[in-house]
Amino acid sequence: MTTSLQRFRAANGALDAAGLRRTLNARAASAALLDLAGNDYLGLGSDDRVIEAAVEATHIWGAGATGSRLVTGTTALHDELERELADFLKAPAALVFSSGYLANLGVLTALGGPDVTIVSDADNHASVIDGCRLSGSVIRVVPHVDVDAVGAALAAVDTPHAMVVTDAVFSVAGDRAPLAALHAVTRTHGALLVVDEAHALGVIGPEGRGAVEAAGLASEPDVVRTVTLSKALGAQGGAVLAAPEVIDLLVNSSRPFIFDTALAPASTGAALAALRILEAEPGRVMAVRRVASRLADMVRARGVETVHPAAAIIPAYLGDPRLAVAAASVCLRAGVRVGCFRPPAVPKGRACLRLTARATLTETDLAHVRTVLDDVLVGDGGETDLSRLTTAGNS
Amino acid sequence: MTTSLQRFRAANGALDAAGLRRTLNARAASAALLDLAGNDYLGLGSDDRVIEAAVEATHIWGAGATGSRLVTGTTALHDELERELADFLKAPAALVFSSGYLANLGVLTALGGPDVTIVSDADNHASVIDGCRLSGSVIRVVPHVDVDAVGAALAAVDTPHAMVVTDAVFSVAGDRAPLAALHAVTRTHGALLVVDEAHALGVIGPEGRGAVEAAGLASEPDVVRTVTLSKALGAQGGAVLAAPEVIDLLVNSSRPFIFDTALAPASTGAALAALRILEAEPGRVMAVRRVASRLADMVRARGVETVHPAAAIIPAYLGDPRLAVAAASVCLRAGVRVGCFRPPAVPKGRACLRLTARATLTETDLAHVRTVLDDVLVGDGGETDLSRLTTAGNS
Repeated sequence: MTTSLQRFRAANGALDAAGLRRTLNARAASAALLDLAGNDYLGLGSDDRVIEAAVEATHIWGAGATGSRLVTGTTALHDELERELADFLKAPAALVFSSGYLANLGVLTALGGPDVTIVSDADNHASVIDGCRLSGSVIRVVPHVDVDAVGAALAAVDTPHAMVVTDAVFSVAGDRAPLAALHAVTRTHGALLVVDEAHALGVIGPEGRGAVEAAGLASEPDVVRTVTLSKALGAQGGAVLAAPEVIDLLVNSSRPFIFDTALAPASTGAALAALRILEAEPGRVMAVRRVASRLADMVRARGVETVHPAAAIIPAYLGDPRLAVAAASVCLRAGVRVGCFRPPAVPKGRACLRLTARATLTETDLAHVRTVLDDVLVGDGGETDLSRLTTAGNS
Repeated sequence: MTTSLQRFRAANGALDAAGLRRTLNARAASAALLDLAGNDYLGLGSDDRVIEAAVEATHIWGAGATGSRLVTGTTALHDELERELADFLKAPAALVFSSGYLANLGVLTALGGPDVTIVSDADNHASVIDGCRLSGSVIRVVPHVDVDAVGAALAAVDTPHAMVVTDAVFSVAGDRAPLAALHAVTRTHGALLVVDEAHALGVIGPEGRGAVEAAGLASEPDVVRTVTLSKALGAQGGAVLAAPEVIDLLVNSSRPFIFDTALAPASTGAALAALRILEAEPGRVMAVRRVASRLADMVRARGVETVHPAAAIIPAYLGDPRLAVAAASVCLRAGVRVGCFRPPAVPKGRACLRLTARATLTETDLAHVRTVLDDVLVGDGGETDLSRLTTAGNS
């Protein structure tokens, strides 16, 4: 009877032994913490206008959507959000899902299948990987941002159809996919290019219209985009931007779309309000990228490996997972929340802090961050001293 | 270049030709329609207290959760909801996901794998089927509610571990799984029983604590439950109820949990308020089941095949998908929204209307439904006349 639980206990124990056990730590509403961990890149999740839109949507439509999209879950508000998302992203059509995770599953399962080969970047997000797996397609994983490898994989396809799938901005390293080159090679082979813009919407391009639009590919019929409504738009949910034929097919055959309760009115209304603010206030896009550059400069100045951030994500590579956990813990005690990524979320030996920029960070905030990083990232040439850092739980 | 779109156009055209093309129809906020299609079984999605809880949560916590659960997405409100869900469902622990779909994917992928056989009911929900597929487990699909077949499948397992997975209440036919017998045979074989209570929470058992609790299995360590927060609780999201070992394992290895933005504050607060009302007002549970019985009586009295409803779902089998679409359309024009299910959501030849009960339906509402059904379901012995019904779009 307890064989199952014994199996699970053993798995948990192995994580403990490897220093990889994660626990949930609830945050308080009133905490005076400076957040460098979340994905509310433009600060819109706490914007009064976005909050009021969520409140108004709840008063008009209720707390839930009441059903799946094809039964009772499509409100006029969902319709409005889809039209304005398509307009803003210069796409022919849009379809809202209840999460970005499900949008990726929904696209890849509906467009993939045993007669399709999917060529997938090695560093793609978990939801893209799961979508590839669930689709039953032939999967070819290629080295990270390697256009030649994508071309070689497409040349070797022996199924009737093929797709290339990539994150626009990668979620931990924060670098960008070479979309123009990927699209060129994808089109040469008559394949479809699927781009996850989760970390690009609101951050990439002069007006935050994302990496596909910045690459001039927004209206190409052989490009399908997914976005989240939970990051730069500060709400919850995901969406697909594509040709009407693709949207029709998703409505009719995408199981994670058809059999899931629709996005709640509060999140739908909040995302719509945030989208309008993004369009009206493009200064936020420049602001988040400026903050990202300055954070990366601070990390680099302390001798820790990082990147020149393409978007709002700045990794600080520490290597040892215990060191990363300890460093995140010291930051937290000093009033700054940072992300902490360990295997299997990152490769072995590549544990890191992940700092995320937000358009609304002030000079005072940045000065505080600088002081805290001086305490935490003390190494020369990346040698941060574990013994100085007390370990404590984090993710 | 257009090979992909041509493929999608052909697929859409084939659906059209088979009378299976679906389109989204947005509903208006003010529509005076009587809803017999949604899953807001207790009427809590539009309850003022639930709406105010969503509003308050948004004011306190913002429009979005700002990140994934292990990074910034766990608020004290998520914590509170998990504790109260576990208490109400008499479970050792609970874990909230952003949708019920993802909760099923998350449980089955984290607990399954190549060394696990999953025995799955043929009529399980799409999210359960997708979870089985994505888990990489050995999958044995057994005939619907057939305990002997489950026993035979378990006896033939040649992997080190096994799980049995079933809906508690099936989402179209509305019947119940024989949980006590399933648990007995599952335990005999040292397997784990996973039960999806999506349509059972708030409806099954004298106090709406679901089918597992009603079967006396709530504290069994070898039973794992999933629930939705979007049906009887009127909000959005899902949750897993299980032993602490299982919850720990999900936190550490369930990709749809780890890599998805947390449930929005509005939905979290709304679900918590709805849960408290469900506990304080158990009369709602009896009310929804009484309404379900009366709706089934109306369908049966008109000579159309239905069931004795175990929960809040009443199918009315019409057979031909075009007939079902036409019947749903006539209902809609008469002011009653009903669900319409066609292949592949139901087997070929089993297209049906799906009526769902709600605790808050009045005698006047039921009299209206009776009048409309008199117009729509006119057959003797199930022979509803297609020629009387004008076809029009529906799902």
